[in-house]
Amino acid sequence: MLAEIITIGDEILIGQIVDTNSAWLGTELSKIGISVKQITSVSDDKQHILEALALAEKRADIIIMTGGLGPTKDDITKHTLCEYFKTSLIVNDAVLQNITSFFAKRNRPMLEVNNKQAEVLANCEILFNNHGTAPGMWIKHNNKVFISMPGVPFEMKGIMMDFGLDKLKRTFKLPFIYHRTILTQGLGESFLADKIKDWEDGLIAKEIKLAYLPSPGMVKLRLTAKGSDKQKIKTTVDAEADELYKLINEYIYGEEELGKTPPTFQSIVGEALTKHNKTISVAESCTGGYISHLITSIAGSSAYYKGSVVAYENEIKIAELNVNPETLKTYGAVSVECAKEMASGILKKFDTDYAIATTGIAGPTGETPDKPIGTVCIAVATKIEVTAQKFIFGTNRVRNIQMAADMALNMLNKAIK
Amino acid sequence: MLAEIITIGDEILIGQIVDTNSAWLGTELSKIGISVKQITSVSDDKQHILEALALAEKRADIIIMTGGLGPTKDDITKHTLCEYFKTSLIVNDAVLQNITSFFAKRNRPMLEVNNKQAEVLANCEILFNNHGTAPGMWIKHNNKVFISMPGVPFEMKGIMMDFGLDKLKRTFKLPFIYHRTILTQGLGESFLADKIKDWEDGLIAKEIKLAYLPSPGMVKLRLTAKGSDKQKIKTTVDAEADELYKLINEYIYGEEELGKTPPTFQSIVGEALTKHNKTISVAESCTGGYISHLITSIAGSSAYYKGSVVAYENEIKIAELNVNPETLKTYGAVSVECAKEMASGILKKFDTDYAIATTGIAGPTGETPDKPIGTVCIAVATKIEVTAQKFIFGTNRVRNIQMAADMALNMLNKAIK
Repeated sequence: MLAEIITIGDEILIGQIVDTNSAWLGTELSKIGISVKQITSVSDDKQHILEALALAEKRADIIIMTGGLGPTKDDITKHTLCEYFKTSLIVNDAVLQNITSFFAKRNRPMLEVNNKQAEVLANCEILFNNHGTAPGMWIKHNNKVFISMPGVPFEMKGIMMDFGLDKLKRTFKLPFIYHRTILTQGLGESFLADKIKDWEDGLIAKEIKLAYLPSPGMVKLRLTAKGSDKQKIKTTVDAEADELYKLINEYIYGEEELGKTPPTFQSIVGEALTKHNKTISVAESCTGGYISHLITSIAGSSAYYKGSVVAYENEIKIAELNVNPETLKTYGAVSVECAKEMASGILKKFDTDYAIATTGIAGPTGETPDKPIGTVCIAVATKIEVTAQKFIFGTNRVRNIQMAADMALNMLNKAIK
Repeated sequence: MLAEIITIGDEILIGQIVDTNSAWLGTELSKIGISVKQITSVSDDKQHILEALALAEKRADIIIMTGGLGPTKDDITKHTLCEYFKTSLIVNDAVLQNITSFFAKRNRPMLEVNNKQAEVLANCEILFNNHGTAPGMWIKHNNKVFISMPGVPFEMKGIMMDFGLDKLKRTFKLPFIYHRTILTQGLGESFLADKIKDWEDGLIAKEIKLAYLPSPGMVKLRLTAKGSDKQKIKTTVDAEADELYKLINEYIYGEEELGKTPPTFQSIVGEALTKHNKTISVAESCTGGYISHLITSIAGSSAYYKGSVVAYENEIKIAELNVNPETLKTYGAVSVECAKEMASGILKKFDTDYAIATTGIAGPTGETPDKPIGTVCIAVATKIEVTAQKFIFGTNRVRNIQMAADMALNMLNKAIK
């Protein structure tokens, strides 16, 4: 089954935004057995959209459009679609109700222009938008399926996750595709590849594809097989995944499941703390609040997270975290000694079961002869002991902050285990 | 002058990589007056590439291809191009020399497969690759220009910056394109449209295009005009931008410049604090460290940022931020009263010139009859006064946190002004 993605909007063509919708759709569609044949980005121009639609219809069975459904004047997609399908716009009462309650919930007045968002193609089925106002539209035409959605990534993803992907699975006879996506941290892509080389070589004969999906500090390994014999495919892939666990168990921190939000270090921390009924606090220097942000981005984190101190200044490390001025003088703020005192200090202050602390040089300035940019010390404290490790990440500030936060949370996970 | 970008590679279609090359090319081409008509992403498939080329040649004057020139894939792309242009591959001695020295410099052995990268189309001019091995190729064909480059972003950018963009400027008589992109916060897309309706209606006669680019809590407004009379176009657009400032001045927080990193609330805060030599601290509840993270993501923030307390628990609000227990009893933790005390508390504790504080219900649970999910109170304190406002954002936890953080930083910006 072939799909084509058409993204509409001048902002993509002049490079003002990077088209991340297509990559997300490509991933999600291929997971359910639909191959993306082409991605086409066109301007907010009626004639151009019409031509793109006609060509896409020749190439693909499923045409997915994003963009051009906002309430303002530069959005012309709906009228263009009316012309393409020789239909007209009608007000959909359920959508109007959805929009009205969207504004009511936010205590905001509704404008005439928002009413227009309840106008949908007469020949469409609605894919409700639980995250915004403009709905998705599903149109059957010449035995092909056309889906039109707003371009705001979070709304588009919501519509696909809530309704679109399921409806595609029900509408088309798709091959069975089975994935296992194993999440690793602590070993670079090429070292990982070297460690699992022999195992990887054996996958070809079993018709299993392996993909390395690296991101800073982490590598996802995705095993994929497809066909019609569900049980056989599942058994073969699962057996190979078991082998992989044996080879690199210490680097695996979780697994991604289809249709579920992938686990993150902070979600695993949250589950573990909830399960053991334990609490946590954080003392941050170089990560500047990012660890606290990751922890509190999890719904329900107030059950186990009490609070943090972000201590950028040394005086705050001393006054709030009880770091000994002598430690700062002897070892410097970026030291395992300081990290340990910070972790112990916040644990006591906020009376929690666990605490993590970070101190380092995120960059781009601040390096010393023996402490290059990317040097980060991370400590984990429990009521019994406090341990710390020193890392040297890279030279990019934002990535150093991310990698330090991930490492700190994973160290905590291991401590809880 | 119209261009089409063709990106070649299965990894784009299955969503394994996000196509950032096209956005970069879109930006750089529009700066020199070339409009990108379409972006097409196709698979590593000969027939599909041939069709894409034929269609692109009909639509555009300049066809820019990226991808498919690596040492493993070049059989597909280069041979496909040979077929399209009815030409053959020849070894280019200068390129071979370049590749040989590339490996020599890095002390790496050269493989047979690397020799093949010196094979180029017989009808092309070389665009040297100073950052890798596969060269760019410039082909004139049917009065159109085709450029083929490797897909690795930094090699592609290098080739364009070193040779491609200059050669395009010398080859074509290009119109002048002028953009102004104005950043607004605090007014939804439809309310903004309503406010500037009359002004917007007047743009057509002046041949200025307006685009609304919304993201959570913010809307970018982009004015675009093109033609040959540089001065006239610039004057006309700038005059309209001035009018726009008069209409919605209170919502404008900055402007984006093509080719520069766009300003963010935290970068504007950073510049303002640096300029006035002032310091800041933060007390966060519902934003859970995100404001501190945004502030510290800016390089050099240690000059003005001292630290934060993330006080998720009420006891921490009382003990660390000096919030009066009576305030919590009377108004609750989610109240402008509590936000004000938190801001004053952290300002005093960390002895800074400014402080911001947030307290709210990020969701998905925690709502009360009079405080729905998304209710957030934000306070800004100076040494003289403390002000606070109550907002009701949406129902999505992550977005509520983002919107509250952006709003808090923008309120601080206004206070500094």
